[in-house]
Amino acid sequence: MGEKIYRVNMTTLTVTTEAVPSEWAGLGGRALTSSIVAKEVPPTCAALGKYNKLVFAPGLLTSTAAANSGRLSAGFKSPLTGGIKESNAGGTAAQNLEKLGIKALIIEGMPADDKWYSLHVNNDGVTIKEDCEFLGKGNYEVITTLSERLGKKIGVLVTGPAGEFKMAAANISVKDPDGNIRSHGRGGGGAVMGAKKVKYITIDDSAGSPVTIADPEKFRTQARIFAKAMLDHPVTGQGLPTYGTDVLINILNEAGGLPTKNFRYGRVDHPEKICGETVHETITSRPNGVAAHGCHAGCIIKCSQIYVDAQGEYITSGFEYETIWGFGCACNISDLDDIAKNDWVMDDIGIDSIEGAVLMSVAMEAGIIPWGDGKATYRLFDQDVRKGTPLGRILGNGTGSVGKAYGLTRIPTVKNQAIPAYDPRSVKGIGITYATSPMGADHTAGYTIATNILKVGGFVDPLKKDGQVELSRNLSIATAAVDSCGLCIFVAFPALDIPECFTAIYEMINARYGISLTADDVVGLGKYVLKTEREFNLAAGMTNKDDRLPEFFEEEVPPHNSVWDFSGAEIDEFWNF
Amino acid sequence: MGEKIYRVNMTTLTVTTEAVPSEWAGLGGRALTSSIVAKEVPPTCAALGKYNKLVFAPGLLTSTAAANSGRLSAGFKSPLTGGIKESNAGGTAAQNLEKLGIKALIIEGMPADDKWYSLHVNNDGVTIKEDCEFLGKGNYEVITTLSERLGKKIGVLVTGPAGEFKMAAANISVKDPDGNIRSHGRGGGGAVMGAKKVKYITIDDSAGSPVTIADPEKFRTQARIFAKAMLDHPVTGQGLPTYGTDVLINILNEAGGLPTKNFRYGRVDHPEKICGETVHETITSRPNGVAAHGCHAGCIIKCSQIYVDAQGEYITSGFEYETIWGFGCACNISDLDDIAKNDWVMDDIGIDSIEGAVLMSVAMEAGIIPWGDGKATYRLFDQDVRKGTPLGRILGNGTGSVGKAYGLTRIPTVKNQAIPAYDPRSVKGIGITYATSPMGADHTAGYTIATNILKVGGFVDPLKKDGQVELSRNLSIATAAVDSCGLCIFVAFPALDIPECFTAIYEMINARYGISLTADDVVGLGKYVLKTEREFNLAAGMTNKDDRLPEFFEEEVPPHNSVWDFSGAEIDEFWNF
Repeated sequence: MGEKIYRVNMTTLTVTTEAVPSEWAGLGGRALTSSIVAKEVPPTCAALGKYNKLVFAPGLLTSTAAANSGRLSAGFKSPLTGGIKESNAGGTAAQNLEKLGIKALIIEGMPADDKWYSLHVNNDGVTIKEDCEFLGKGNYEVITTLSERLGKKIGVLVTGPAGEFKMAAANISVKDPDGNIRSHGRGGGGAVMGAKKVKYITIDDSAGSPVTIADPEKFRTQARIFAKAMLDHPVTGQGLPTYGTDVLINILNEAGGLPTKNFRYGRVDHPEKICGETVHETITSRPNGVAAHGCHAGCIIKCSQIYVDAQGEYITSGFEYETIWGFGCACNISDLDDIAKNDWVMDDIGIDSIEGAVLMSVAMEAGIIPWGDGKATYRLFDQDVRKGTPLGRILGNGTGSVGKAYGLTRIPTVKNQAIPAYDPRSVKGIGITYATSPMGADHTAGYTIATNILKVGGFVDPLKKDGQVELSRNLSIATAAVDSCGLCIFVAFPALDIPECFTAIYEMINARYGISLTADDVVGLGKYVLKTEREFNLAAGMTNKDDRLPEFFEEEVPPHNSVWDFSGAEIDEFWNF
Repeated sequence: MGEKIYRVNMTTLTVTTEAVPSEWAGLGGRALTSSIVAKEVPPTCAALGKYNKLVFAPGLLTSTAAANSGRLSAGFKSPLTGGIKESNAGGTAAQNLEKLGIKALIIEGMPADDKWYSLHVNNDGVTIKEDCEFLGKGNYEVITTLSERLGKKIGVLVTGPAGEFKMAAANISVKDPDGNIRSHGRGGGGAVMGAKKVKYITIDDSAGSPVTIADPEKFRTQARIFAKAMLDHPVTGQGLPTYGTDVLINILNEAGGLPTKNFRYGRVDHPEKICGETVHETITSRPNGVAAHGCHAGCIIKCSQIYVDAQGEYITSGFEYETIWGFGCACNISDLDDIAKNDWVMDDIGIDSIEGAVLMSVAMEAGIIPWGDGKATYRLFDQDVRKGTPLGRILGNGTGSVGKAYGLTRIPTVKNQAIPAYDPRSVKGIGITYATSPMGADHTAGYTIATNILKVGGFVDPLKKDGQVELSRNLSIATAAVDSCGLCIFVAFPALDIPECFTAIYEMINARYGISLTADDVVGLGKYVLKTEREFNLAAGMTNKDDRLPEFFEEEVPPHNSVWDFSGAEIDEFWNF
């Protein structure tokens, strides 16, 4: 099918084109990036050194007519966790790469000198250009300038000032269809890109081709079933399109699982100021606001939005629950516009918005800035992180960095990655996912909130230990498979409740490639991905002691006064598959 | 024998007196602190949290007439390495504790509020006093004031401003016989003391008793043999007394194993400006200088000194090779007075001088200050670390902290502890010790320089791999035993070359306690200590991947152009005993 791997060597400044080895032919997205990293990166190497690699791979369904299939996976050894990392994002890059027949783009080595470069991918291959034009510039300026220069359809991947400083919380920004920003957020991919001295990558698919579909008729049928399921399901058909992911503020607050003031409380005092309903009302009441917006072509959920100020000026987009929770609850900030400005500045300097929000709550814990002060957090990002001041270095290296610098013990991380927006004491299933994910604390790795709180795919009582390990394990396996398809993780909601939706996923793959995967194969793929990732981490020096939550979760959290009460042996049961 | 353990609970602010359990009766110093930590501290606990403990224990020969037996062990889980730590120091505290019949002082828990305390130990027990008098004060002021107030014989243990900030490079300072400072330097004991909100501890032995000796005549005989061996041996009888530990500058420079400019070179350009011979000449040519000085009563080596400026004003004491190497070579500073002032300021704020020197070389690597600028390093300590500025936090948390904050890969640490003054590529035996010691990179843990360079205890070619693992293993086992006796590690020089000196060590213990240890028992004790420590580390989540040197040691180092070429499996052979 003409698929190829481009290998860019930043030590020799050369590019090679490789056929896809048969062992990787059936893989895409996370399955492919994790396989390549596991095979080619020495697990104990320095994450910011020459032996690490940065791998981009579209998913198995990318650039097809399958709804919500436009996610791009980035894989590398994480400078944040020290383990393997896959971080996927929307935007236009995945589809552009796929149209050029690129199965994976591998960036390896690093320049011996201090020069910076850009990479330019088109149908003729990859060009490496010495390029310091955008050094120190924010991601918005880079993407806007490149879009003006190269056309709105150009794909762009860029590391911001944070990545240039090789900060462990640095993300990789992706241009979205409107020239705004999506992110490979977690795990410090931007730092790895910065270490390789690649400021940005353009992907020009103007001479590319539509993907070939082995059985177009079958594909169309299954894609329709798949799309209908998403529109029919209340979460993906109503909740997310209307209110965005921030619909979860009121739901989690009600459930008492909304971590507030650095995980001291399970409810926030001002849910009405930051909830999805208020975001929706704010956007729709202001000029130029867009309440429902997709992060990539073919998205039918449109949980994103364009958030504007009272005058209708753009503030941010991709304004997610996690970010709003982090500033609104973990940091206790009640001004939604302030939170939106923090979202913008993190996108502009290239900081993972979950890590960025949680590290600010720890900065408040340390007394660096007052609780609830959203202007102070903005100032720290814009004046310190962006400029790489000493305080900016502490912050930009993540939540663990801030906690350690200030001698704290209340540091909400697993494997040094910040714990997201669900208290593991009040929603115990997600605690198992935080503990066990090879990615570090990660809600998307096995989103038990679906079943613990939203009652999707059944119900497992969030306050009891029973069934949580199995729930987390099953969802983690399924997620690893979904992440390999290039699909948005939200397709899991209908897939969990509507049997033909789940079937449609692998039938679309079958139709695309002319193969005959079964449901068991999908599960097998998920297991393979998780085990491959875990083996990398073990070889890097991690143990089951890294699959643990921080000590302070032994404290009771109101309103349920629940504690984290899983033993190590109970957590370790996760890996029995 | 009236020996007891005092247990100070800083949560409840209570003190209990406990009999010594039989399992610990035969242990002292490192053997005892490591046993207590291993038994009582949960290995995965937060090092700065309430479950960690800080244990002080004199050695088996402390406060006897045995020469050089005045070392005190401090044990805890290290906030720097995440593993177990024993750090021993001279000064007066060990002998004071022993005269009060105190086998160990265990400090556990931590106050729930933000109050600070001091502990006062005398023949009536331990008193806990709320005490913020010295907060923010330097160690010299604290020790001088307490000496004036309580008498020159008072023992003092104090954590400086760095420890108050819970910085991972913070040491615990010990008053020496002249009211100057020795340090439990490595591993962040000062931060653990700070976390427990204990600013200082006084030890008043005025109502104490001399230790009882079961067989005084035998003890006298063996103590004489032991002392004579130290005076007879060229290293402890001549080299160290005359030139101090800094005698090693010229020796290591000649050997090409003197790490210079953050381990880029094996020789320095200006050895004559910083070598022991120059230190000796400088001290003796200036008014009030003291060229040979013991760190505790009963020291007959007197490798320490009192270093003064041209006007005879005190600059520093305990001015060691490691410090002079670190600033003089790793940081490439050629002004000896500047180096001495850095030694003083680290003592005053309570920073481990090895970690402090190496972290400054990494700060130069990061471009924070210029190479070779000793006034800049002083300023960073005095203006930033002392005051806890953001940059001070980065620095005060050690070499790894600086390297990570600035996105470097040339970070000379093992288990996050700075590598000391011997290049492991040019002196390969010490590389095995750095890699394997449960303490993190530590030259004293198994000082192969003795045999690789000084030809004490035989000779193993430093540039070849042959015999290094066995050498490091044997010395590490012996050292663990010596550290349990309260003996200065330098007694190993005569003990390695003079058989009756080695015999005298355990015969003195036999005479002291009326027991009958053999040479095998001493070896068995050393093995027990090492294995106990390693088991703690494994239970804390370390693996053999933590027994590795940093990636950059694959680079050749001049003048021998040697590389670090031990495989993981070869290093792991260390633990086959």
